[in-house]
Amino acid sequence: MLRNDQLAQWDRENFFHPSTHLAQHARGETQTRVIKSASGSYIEDREGRKMLDAFAGLYCVNVGYGRQEIAEAIGDQAKELAYYHSYVGHGTEASITLSKMILDRAPANMSKVYFGLSGSDANETNIKLIWYYNNILGRPEKKRIISRWRGYHGSGLVTGSLTGLKLFHKKFDLPVEQVIHTQAPYYFRRDDLNQSEEEFVAHCVAELEALIEREGADTIAAFIGEPVLGTGGIVPPPAGYWPAIQAVLKKHDILLVADEVVTGFGRLGSMFGADHYGLEADIITIAKGLTSAYAPLSGSIISEKLWKVLEQGTDENGPIGHGWTYSAHPIGAAAGVANLKLLDDLKLIQNASSVGAYLNTSMKEALGDHANVGDIRGEGMLCAVEFVEDRQDRKFFEASQKIGAQLSATLLSQDSVIARAMPQGDILGFAPPFCLGREEADIIVASTARAVKTVLG
Amino acid sequence: MLRNDQLAQWDRENFFHPSTHLAQHARGETQTRVIKSASGSYIEDREGRKMLDAFAGLYCVNVGYGRQEIAEAIGDQAKELAYYHSYVGHGTEASITLSKMILDRAPANMSKVYFGLSGSDANETNIKLIWYYNNILGRPEKKRIISRWRGYHGSGLVTGSLTGLKLFHKKFDLPVEQVIHTQAPYYFRRDDLNQSEEEFVAHCVAELEALIEREGADTIAAFIGEPVLGTGGIVPPPAGYWPAIQAVLKKHDILLVADEVVTGFGRLGSMFGADHYGLEADIITIAKGLTSAYAPLSGSIISEKLWKVLEQGTDENGPIGHGWTYSAHPIGAAAGVANLKLLDDLKLIQNASSVGAYLNTSMKEALGDHANVGDIRGEGMLCAVEFVEDRQDRKFFEASQKIGAQLSATLLSQDSVIARAMPQGDILGFAPPFCLGREEADIIVASTARAVKTVLG
Repeated sequence: MLRNDQLAQWDRENFFHPSTHLAQHARGETQTRVIKSASGSYIEDREGRKMLDAFAGLYCVNVGYGRQEIAEAIGDQAKELAYYHSYVGHGTEASITLSKMILDRAPANMSKVYFGLSGSDANETNIKLIWYYNNILGRPEKKRIISRWRGYHGSGLVTGSLTGLKLFHKKFDLPVEQVIHTQAPYYFRRDDLNQSEEEFVAHCVAELEALIEREGADTIAAFIGEPVLGTGGIVPPPAGYWPAIQAVLKKHDILLVADEVVTGFGRLGSMFGADHYGLEADIITIAKGLTSAYAPLSGSIISEKLWKVLEQGTDENGPIGHGWTYSAHPIGAAAGVANLKLLDDLKLIQNASSVGAYLNTSMKEALGDHANVGDIRGEGMLCAVEFVEDRQDRKFFEASQKIGAQLSATLLSQDSVIARAMPQGDILGFAPPFCLGREEADIIVASTARAVKTVLG
Repeated sequence: MLRNDQLAQWDRENFFHPSTHLAQHARGETQTRVIKSASGSYIEDREGRKMLDAFAGLYCVNVGYGRQEIAEAIGDQAKELAYYHSYVGHGTEASITLSKMILDRAPANMSKVYFGLSGSDANETNIKLIWYYNNILGRPEKKRIISRWRGYHGSGLVTGSLTGLKLFHKKFDLPVEQVIHTQAPYYFRRDDLNQSEEEFVAHCVAELEALIEREGADTIAAFIGEPVLGTGGIVPPPAGYWPAIQAVLKKHDILLVADEVVTGFGRLGSMFGADHYGLEADIITIAKGLTSAYAPLSGSIISEKLWKVLEQGTDENGPIGHGWTYSAHPIGAAAGVANLKLLDDLKLIQNASSVGAYLNTSMKEALGDHANVGDIRGEGMLCAVEFVEDRQDRKFFEASQKIGAQLSATLLSQDSVIARAMPQGDILGFAPPFCLGREEADIIVASTARAVKTVLG
């Protein structure tokens, strides 16, 4: 058997990790952590350390770890047919069944699903289809995409541009010019502290209107947004935000892409964020929760309105020139079918709703009065705690203090609980598996309170 | 059990297939083909029809179908740990082992591997890293990428721009302005029929030099090319092409990205196309052959020269802002380890070389003298037959006659052999699994000859 130090050396010598300080890691200044096995809400590393994963991987292992039903579906599919492509009308029983299961669960105006691998490539597909759509409709100028600051929509060149976080743009020449950003619906971080939530929504709407006015509605194809901001800080929208935004978009004939990579398939306690907030999206992006990450699979769910134009496009131009070799990969499709079935059979979305509410309430009870806690917010099985130097005048810590990173490191070292220090601000994010029990929620809350006490007193 | 007509209906109603005529398929005018199982070089559909797959999926199932060693590695990994992320120094035994196995096989100047899912996302990563590299080196203007007409590098917005095939640009507003194209090294389709191969290479080099001169070398970051053009027509380069091109790139300090999604891990009979043609690449793109498509996994192999600058970049700017949730996915990594082991254990690359040569020779013997066969070419386990209306003056068929598509359809209907009608021109492409036997090569050749006789006489 391979020794841990051997693996650590191979790792430093050969492995280019994402979102890592490359030089420090290669020099051996940061640790290699080799994960070995996992079950329920817990993962275990190769040194035998067990950790409560309160972020479900990267908010993706929604049904929890170690589900043998999904593992068996994957293994059986691999034995029978690990791969065939889905070009030109090809499919497998699993991929076709999954397409139906997705549409059965999607909002009523949805028509078809295009399968990809990641949320990034699904958003890439979305933009291609939106451009194609406006070309078919004879509107060649209507192409730019509005995204929000603090949105997260991927890490590619264009999808990383949609992402509204500076860290993902720095030194990469992003955003590209086809993407423009507008106000994040982040009430806690409003510029004017005197604004009510209602006034802040009106401000977001006015900002969007002004942007559209400035750029010209005939140049703007679509608006993309997560129903709840994810990596940007886990921020549910203020009341009334989505209906007001959607009204502006409809007025200007701008498509709405709901990026539900994080929220799709139950994380908010509803099947989709679109249902949860009453959105009528033209495209819904799905990924993580579709397979609970047991195998890579993403999708673009396309509305009937868009689909009809795509049909017209292929009648006029022949087969659509878009495809990934691994679109609807049989292993991902088999994982998706088993995963969605498990969500239903074990009523995991209901659990996400009830235990998620319990987690949020408990977090507020434990930390709501702490002098350095500025905001505790959440929805469904999502929760965030935002830290400030001074809660009276909402004074943020200096970024160089890395309070968020310190808290997350302390939480892990003291109590073996994994939460995520969100990348922009001092925000601890929690997105546990849907199967989380109340006693596990208690552990998360107690451990967080202890870490806060250690770091901030 | 689900009936086939039920699946076909679900398919039409819900499934958005890649590279498909969407309207015809939704109207039921094109067939749904549900693939059920596969073994060796054969796949079988749900109606019990067995087909010899002479294109190995989409030239990806290199070790052949039904390899239980890989299926078991996938199933075991799914049971033990289906997912954990690889951010910030995390890995699994499989992903770290695979990173070492890749570097052990890669050319000596290579240093690290970044894992993605598809060839498209790997090329996306490559461009991001190239831009970052030139930003760190203080050359913010050196950013454009040269690709070749008929190259295939993906289907995203920027990667589809790298792709030099009209079908993938049409109605999608591609290519984007950061990408510029140069001459394809496609001797058979040279403009000047009087050119010798040597003169044609000099012409390709002159075209590249002129492009660099016109645009300014200080604006051009990289050149991307497949060692052998794949989807553009399966075209090995003329003798001397790569050394001459590489000399130009070195002179102008332009990086070379070798896109080895098709050629990597043995398809040419060598481990990499870079070895095969003596290229010194700065980045090598890998995907299909890395796992033989048993699970989605791609990679960007980064040279030491690039890596050192990336290290400098993170020392100056902190962790790199690039990552995919499914980077180094455990299932893909487990499949990759088992796949590369199988390639070695069964000496499949040697078989690709010897049976590939046999296939090419046999194809030339069978069809070399046919009046409508303009060119038969190949390398390793790749072969293409290009058809012309008149071979004397190399007159091509009208595209509207769809000769290539007719031939591929006839090959399938008459003899249940799958070859690919390449998208631009009347070219039948063959890229069988490496395990192909000589008797299977004989079937492919005889069936092709029969299809040619049926369609063209």
